Amino acid sequence: MNNNLKFKDVLLAKKVIYKHIKPTPLRHYAELSDYLGFNGYIKHENHLPTNSFKIRGGINLLTHLSKKNIKGVITASRGNHGQSLAYSSMLEGINCKIVVPYGNNPEKNAAIKSFNAELIEYGNDFDEARTYSEKLVTNNFLYVHPCNEPKLIAGVATQTLEILDDLPEVDTILLPLGGGTEVAGAIIVVKQLNPKIKIIGVQAELAPAYYLSWKNNSIIHTKSADTIADGLATKMPYELPSSIIMENINEIITVTEDEIKQSIIKLYKTTHNLAEGAGAVSLAAGNKIKHKLKDKNVVMILSGGNLDLETFKSILNTNKNIF
Amino acid sequence: MNNNLKFKDVLLAKKVIYKHIKPTPLRHYAELSDYLGFNGYIKHENHLPTNSFKIRGGINLLTHLSKKNIKGVITASRGNHGQSLAYSSMLEGINCKIVVPYGNNPEKNAAIKSFNAELIEYGNDFDEARTYSEKLVTNNFLYVHPCNEPKLIAGVATQTLEILDDLPEVDTILLPLGGGTEVAGAIIVVKQLNPKIKIIGVQAELAPAYYLSWKNNSIIHTKSADTIADGLATKMPYELPSSIIMENINEIITVTEDEIKQSIIKLYKTTHNLAEGAGAVSLAAGNKIKHKLKDKNVVMILSGGNLDLETFKSILNTNKNIF
Repeated sequence: MNNNLKFKDVLLAKKVIYKHIKPTPLRHYAELSDYLGFNGYIKHENHLPTNSFKIRGGINLLTHLSKKNIKGVITASRGNHGQSLAYSSMLEGINCKIVVPYGNNPEKNAAIKSFNAELIEYGNDFDEARTYSEKLVTNNFLYVHPCNEPKLIAGVATQTLEILDDLPEVDTILLPLGGGTEVAGAIIVVKQLNPKIKIIGVQAELAPAYYLSWKNNSIIHTKSADTIADGLATKMPYELPSSIIMENINEIITVTEDEIKQSIIKLYKTTHNLAEGAGAVSLAAGNKIKHKLKDKNVVMILSGGNLDLETFKSILNTNKNIF
Repeated sequence: MNNNLKFKDVLLAKKVIYKHIKPTPLRHYAELSDYLGFNGYIKHENHLPTNSFKIRGGINLLTHLSKKNIKGVITASRGNHGQSLAYSSMLEGINCKIVVPYGNNPEKNAAIKSFNAELIEYGNDFDEARTYSEKLVTNNFLYVHPCNEPKLIAGVATQTLEILDDLPEVDTILLPLGGGTEVAGAIIVVKQLNPKIKIIGVQAELAPAYYLSWKNNSIIHTKSADTIADGLATKMPYELPSSIIMENINEIITVTEDEIKQSIIKLYKTTHNLAEGAGAVSLAAGNKIKHKLKDKNVVMILSGGNLDLETFKSILNTNKNIF
C-alpha cells in the first residue's frame, strides 16, 4: 500500500466531511435484484451536493488546507471533480479556476460556474486540459492534481466506510474506474476492515488504460478515451491511485458503449434516478458477470448523475434493446 | 384547524419516521435562482425511499397501528401513496393490497409489486379506483383512505419541520396540491411555528378541484382530472385536508400541461434530478409568479421523481421551448 495514504487518513476525512454533506443512501432494489439474480444495492452518490462522489474529496482537501498563503486553487476536470472543487472553494471562501476540454458537458460547465468558479476551456480531451492547467499555476494559486492527491482519495474513501456501516455483509463492490481515486479509496478501506470483500473496477471499453495496464502488468497509455462516460475518459493510469490499485484490485472489467447506455435506461426505469455514463457502468458490469455473483450481496456505485439532457435524449432515441 | 389533527401529532410522527428514513436535502440552486430572480431552494423529496414524500405518511400510519387484529391494509393510489403503504407494510411485516386505475404508470405499478404488495387494477381514474377499493375491504384488512387519514397528514408534515430547521428564514413554500395531504401538513406546521410563511398550493389546470373550490368558497367536483401530473389527478377536495386548506392557505395557483413539462426539463438541466409531473409544478408556479417573489427565500417541493420513461421521452421529443 502507498505510504502517502493510510486508513487513518480516511478516518480524518470522516471527521470533517459530515459538516457539509450527509451519508448517501444504500438502497436495495428488488426488481433489479430479481433480474440480476443477486442482492443488488445501489449506492446513491448522485444524491450528494454536485450530484457526484467527488465532493467528498474536495471538501476533505480544502478543509485540511492551510489557506494562509493561498488565494485559490486550480485544477482540470471533465466536470464532477471541477464541481467538487468549485463547491468546496465556495464553502471555504477562496477562488477557484477549473480547466475543462473543449466540447465538455455543457450542464457540468454551467454548474461549475454557478459555484462562482472561473471556467477555462482548453484542449481536446481531459489530459490536454490537465497539462494546460499545470501551466496556469501562479504563485498564490495551488494546483490540485485530479488524481495524485492523497486528500482527494481519503475523502472519497468515506463512501466505502458508509457501505460497510450499512451492509457489513457485502460481498462485492462494483465501482467505476476512471482516474482511479474512487477505486483506490475503496481498496484502502476494505483492506483494513474486511479484505474478503471483492473490489471490481469497471472501465469503458473505449477508455481502458487501467484495464490494459493491469492485464499486462505495466503502465499503458491509450491514444484516445472517447466514451459516453465522460467521467471515465482518461488515457492513462495515474501514479498514486495506480500504486494502490494495480497490486490490490480483484478484477477490472470493461463494458461497451451500448452496455453503458442500456444501464442508464435500466437505472431510470427501476430506480428513477439519473445516472451519467460513469454512474451506470457498475450496473453494466453487474449484469455482465451476474453468473459469477449469484445470490451475493453486491453494491453497485451510482457515482454521479450529471448526464446532460441532449446526450440522454440521444440515448433514448437510439437504444431500444434494454437488457 | 381540524380537531382530529394537531401540531402535536406531527411531533409524534417525527419521533418514529426517522427510524426508517433520513431528512431530505434542501438545496439552493444558483443557476435556477439567477433565472427566477429569487433565492430558489429545492426540497428533494425524490431522495426518499420510493422516491416520494408519501413514505413519510405511510411509515407514520403503520408504525402507530395496532396490528393485533389486522392481517393487512388496503388502499387506492395513482402510485406514490401505494408505494408508500406497500413499502411500510413490508417494513412492518403485514399484507398490503393497492388498487390502481387502468393504464396507470407502469413503473409505479412495478415498484408497488416489488415491495410485495398485491396490485389490483380497476376503474378509469383515481376516484373510481378508490371507490372500488372501499368495496374490497374485508374484516381483517384495514382500509386506509388516501387523503382523509390524520396519520398520513401528520407524517407528511415532517417535511415542513425539516424545511424550518434548515432554512428558518424561508418566506414562501410552493407545494403540489393533489389529494391535499402535503399542503395540509405544511399549513399545520407553519401555523404553529411561523404563520408569516406563505403556503401556496399548485394544481394542474386540468385537475383544479381545490382551486375552484377555494375560489368559489364551496366544494366543487370536476368531471375529469386528466393531467400528465398523475399524482395530482383527483376530481375533488377531500374532507380532512380540505378542512385545513380552505381556511388557511394563502393562495392556490394552476399551471398548464406545457408549464409542467417545461419545468420537468428545467429541473433536469439545472439540478439533474428527475421530477414527475407533480414534482415539477412548484417550479412551474415559481416561474409563473416570480415577479411577486423577487429576492425572497422560496422553497419549491420536488415531491416525487417517479416519471415513467415513455412519458419522459414524449416530453423530450415534443417540447422545445424551455423557459
